[in-house]
Amino acid sequence: MSGDVEFVVNALGRKVPIVVNGKGQEAYQGPDAREPKGAKHAPPIRACKDYPVSGDKRVPDLKTALEKCGLSDGMVISSHHHLRNGDRVALRALEAAAEIGVKDLMWFPSASFPCQEPVIDMMDKGIVHHIEGSMNGPLGAYCSYGKMRGMGVLRSHGGRWQAIQDGEVHIDVAVLAAPTADPFGNADGSHGPSACGSMGFGLADSMYADRVIIVTDNLVPFPAIPHQIYGNNVDYVVEVDSIGDPSKIVSGTTQITKSPDRQLIAQYVARFMKDAGIMRDGFSFQAGAGGIALAFVGYLKEMMKQSGVKARFVRGGSTQYLVDLLNEGYVDYILDGQTFDLAAVKSIGEDPRHIWTSPFTSYNWHGKGNYASMVDAVILGATEVDLDFNGNVNTHSDGMLLHGIGGWQNCLFSGCTILALPTFRNRIPVIVDEVTTVTGPGELIDVIITERGIAINPRRDDLLERVQGSDLPIKSIEQIKEEVEAMVGGPPEPPNVTDKPVAVVKWVDGTIIDTVWEVVD
Amino acid sequence: MSGDVEFVVNALGRKVPIVVNGKGQEAYQGPDAREPKGAKHAPPIRACKDYPVSGDKRVPDLKTALEKCGLSDGMVISSHHHLRNGDRVALRALEAAAEIGVKDLMWFPSASFPCQEPVIDMMDKGIVHHIEGSMNGPLGAYCSYGKMRGMGVLRSHGGRWQAIQDGEVHIDVAVLAAPTADPFGNADGSHGPSACGSMGFGLADSMYADRVIIVTDNLVPFPAIPHQIYGNNVDYVVEVDSIGDPSKIVSGTTQITKSPDRQLIAQYVARFMKDAGIMRDGFSFQAGAGGIALAFVGYLKEMMKQSGVKARFVRGGSTQYLVDLLNEGYVDYILDGQTFDLAAVKSIGEDPRHIWTSPFTSYNWHGKGNYASMVDAVILGATEVDLDFNGNVNTHSDGMLLHGIGGWQNCLFSGCTILALPTFRNRIPVIVDEVTTVTGPGELIDVIITERGIAINPRRDDLLERVQGSDLPIKSIEQIKEEVEAMVGGPPEPPNVTDKPVAVVKWVDGTIIDTVWEVVD
Repeated sequence: MSGDVEFVVNALGRKVPIVVNGKGQEAYQGPDAREPKGAKHAPPIRACKDYPVSGDKRVPDLKTALEKCGLSDGMVISSHHHLRNGDRVALRALEAAAEIGVKDLMWFPSASFPCQEPVIDMMDKGIVHHIEGSMNGPLGAYCSYGKMRGMGVLRSHGGRWQAIQDGEVHIDVAVLAAPTADPFGNADGSHGPSACGSMGFGLADSMYADRVIIVTDNLVPFPAIPHQIYGNNVDYVVEVDSIGDPSKIVSGTTQITKSPDRQLIAQYVARFMKDAGIMRDGFSFQAGAGGIALAFVGYLKEMMKQSGVKARFVRGGSTQYLVDLLNEGYVDYILDGQTFDLAAVKSIGEDPRHIWTSPFTSYNWHGKGNYASMVDAVILGATEVDLDFNGNVNTHSDGMLLHGIGGWQNCLFSGCTILALPTFRNRIPVIVDEVTTVTGPGELIDVIITERGIAINPRRDDLLERVQGSDLPIKSIEQIKEEVEAMVGGPPEPPNVTDKPVAVVKWVDGTIIDTVWEVVD
Repeated sequence: MSGDVEFVVNALGRKVPIVVNGKGQEAYQGPDAREPKGAKHAPPIRACKDYPVSGDKRVPDLKTALEKCGLSDGMVISSHHHLRNGDRVALRALEAAAEIGVKDLMWFPSASFPCQEPVIDMMDKGIVHHIEGSMNGPLGAYCSYGKMRGMGVLRSHGGRWQAIQDGEVHIDVAVLAAPTADPFGNADGSHGPSACGSMGFGLADSMYADRVIIVTDNLVPFPAIPHQIYGNNVDYVVEVDSIGDPSKIVSGTTQITKSPDRQLIAQYVARFMKDAGIMRDGFSFQAGAGGIALAFVGYLKEMMKQSGVKARFVRGGSTQYLVDLLNEGYVDYILDGQTFDLAAVKSIGEDPRHIWTSPFTSYNWHGKGNYASMVDAVILGATEVDLDFNGNVNTHSDGMLLHGIGGWQNCLFSGCTILALPTFRNRIPVIVDEVTTVTGPGELIDVIITERGIAINPRRDDLLERVQGSDLPIKSIEQIKEEVEAMVGGPPEPPNVTDKPVAVVKWVDGTIIDTVWEVVD
């Protein structure tokens, strides 16, 4: 593949291919430089006459459903990842496709997990041609070593919506796991034995795919109320014994970090938000389900209590900790993108102030605004950050592609983007001269908060000014980098990669922000 | 206009034009004969960079908003009718357009009401070229007399969704009144001083129009929860003192008929549903807010109580009477298309079992099924019905176009379509040899229930069989017609119309089912 790929250099100075998987590409031009063009994807017009008058769209099994959808060689089959590492539907769909005997499928999950490792075998056998979507763990490694026939295409949650909406990716058949559904195909994530809360990552698939299959282990009589996916977009409904392993779909409880360093980072984040004046009545923030983020929520809540401040909304990855904020009156609403633990699933199923959102409302750059830019502060992680404040969440310093983007890129548009990071992991520094892969541009990353100090992006002199006089350890990013390198013995080794591209990272507007290169051991 | 219009004869034998308002048309081929073609309408791709980072899309007034939308001559401007005869937004939008100085607009309301009579003056002045949408009362009369420059196009609620979705009607600017909204444009109908309940009739406009303006008199901080219209589809938000006159938006209470004849009809309908075995555990029905329908609900409830039967869902036009069914445990869910009285507005705002629906979920023929065919029985009215069971809801026997279609055509796909009608009005018989205008084909109309007897469509021998042995007055439609004509002195006079078409009636699939002709006094 490598020899005949043409490259250009994009606005960040990164070499990116101009054709990926046979489709022409645009290079990244800047965070908001690209002018939108053209019209949204127009799915085919269907008619009620071709659907059961009774509304009952059930067929006996997934194989039958895929056959009725006309699944054939080279098609695109999609799935969502709300069942995370407990998912039993996406893999089963690909297995059913294998039984039909089709080849060269493009699998288009909103994310893939280690439980889907058997897809490697399907790629080896030619059933699956390649994956476009987050590849967490073993599938990412397979891609990194150059074994996938097509290139990986990594998109943020908002970028995946944008790509589907804009017709960059045409989904032939969407196979959507539903914790509850009715025979018409109305589907809900918040109830049933395999409840996962929000189902927002499957919404675009349901709206824009040619054919849509709902797979459920909790069929209820029409109408399934509430529902997040409209049966009016659904072709077939399949009942199965189990769509997933509940213990791996949601954790019983999510865990606050126990590491003193990370506790300190969490504390600094909360104090920064207070000292910078972000924590004020009616403010909003987004924090995920990582250990630092959870600890941060605890510290922030204490400060809100002391100051008598209430937030208007929080965004998550929702957990017990956000649900507590809601129930104890510290926030009016949770706008939920993913639901991570049992307390959050219960809350989204019962509390009308805990709202499911989708990448359309939250993240899609090609809409008339989205929620991300309205969030006052967002707390994110990264595998690396460089002296230009560019961030990497996809690859490690050895070049291995092991993580997806999630909503990370989309969140960078918040009022204040904070990367909360330990300065090193396994004795490898996190602050580097130049990130291995640019997932997001430094001009959108405002603050780096580490256990050794807080670096504010010089572009944000307003923030620098606001924390004048604070007793927080404000330093330059160079200074923190030097301290860490002195301690761990210098910068990381450069990755051992070839000139063969194995994946690209898309920016929120569909342009290519960076390339991932083949790793050799 | 008349001389150069070409016509064809459609599958019902009605003469219909092949071009309407400059656009080529298809003639009706049968209730479900037309094969769907092509792709849905693809609205332009927008980007967040062109919308405020703060999410605040407010502009000072409607005129400014329309100017920013680039309103210009010949454009299509749309509105919904959830504020009914109390609406203060649609007319104000057209007045603002007049202030800008644009001409030849096509106004595309989901329905128009007498409060919008001043649009006649705008049509006379050339500001509005013509109206496509239900024209209740004076605007219908204006059209009937051949005074409108373009032809009226009447569509059902589902047909309006179909036309927008399929790109038959391209909306340049949608102006949507919202009883509650936030500065981002999230909009809700169930709360606020001008609450109207569902806002479903504006949903397609918000999704497919080039530009969308939300007009509200109850602005709340982001996020407005719940919301029915997504701010991600909205361009501008305008605050006004009042979007409507609450006393005309919803009635305090809706009124059961006091007429003994109509009470008898209502009783027959309820008894028919019991005797025909439609009223059974888990059944469903749709009844509107007319006097007969309300009385019917009372009788049916009594029978449900006696038989210990519970419905799965009811559809409305929701009123106190349906809300009582819900609260007293006679039904699991109300699937609400329009919300007609204060009790229903309160219920839809508070009770998660009372769900707003849209023409997409309920009625759109060009979807993967819809709710209408899942309803066991629907009770409808008509201005006329003929010996072939064809129904008319648009014109009177004098040819005057005075009513819209509403969801009437869409509801015909229910399991049992019942027209509940008095046999005459103002001494004019309702059962005729041939209806003045075919709104819906007889093959979808199953039962005519009058105060003088019940006529079952011979096509439904299953229903005839099921009521064998019932003591209901089952008669042939011819027999009822003869009885009435003997009493009132014969059939109605034929209408005094010319050969000039003034409007067309579209079927649910976008084809033309009939033509409305110019009336001369």
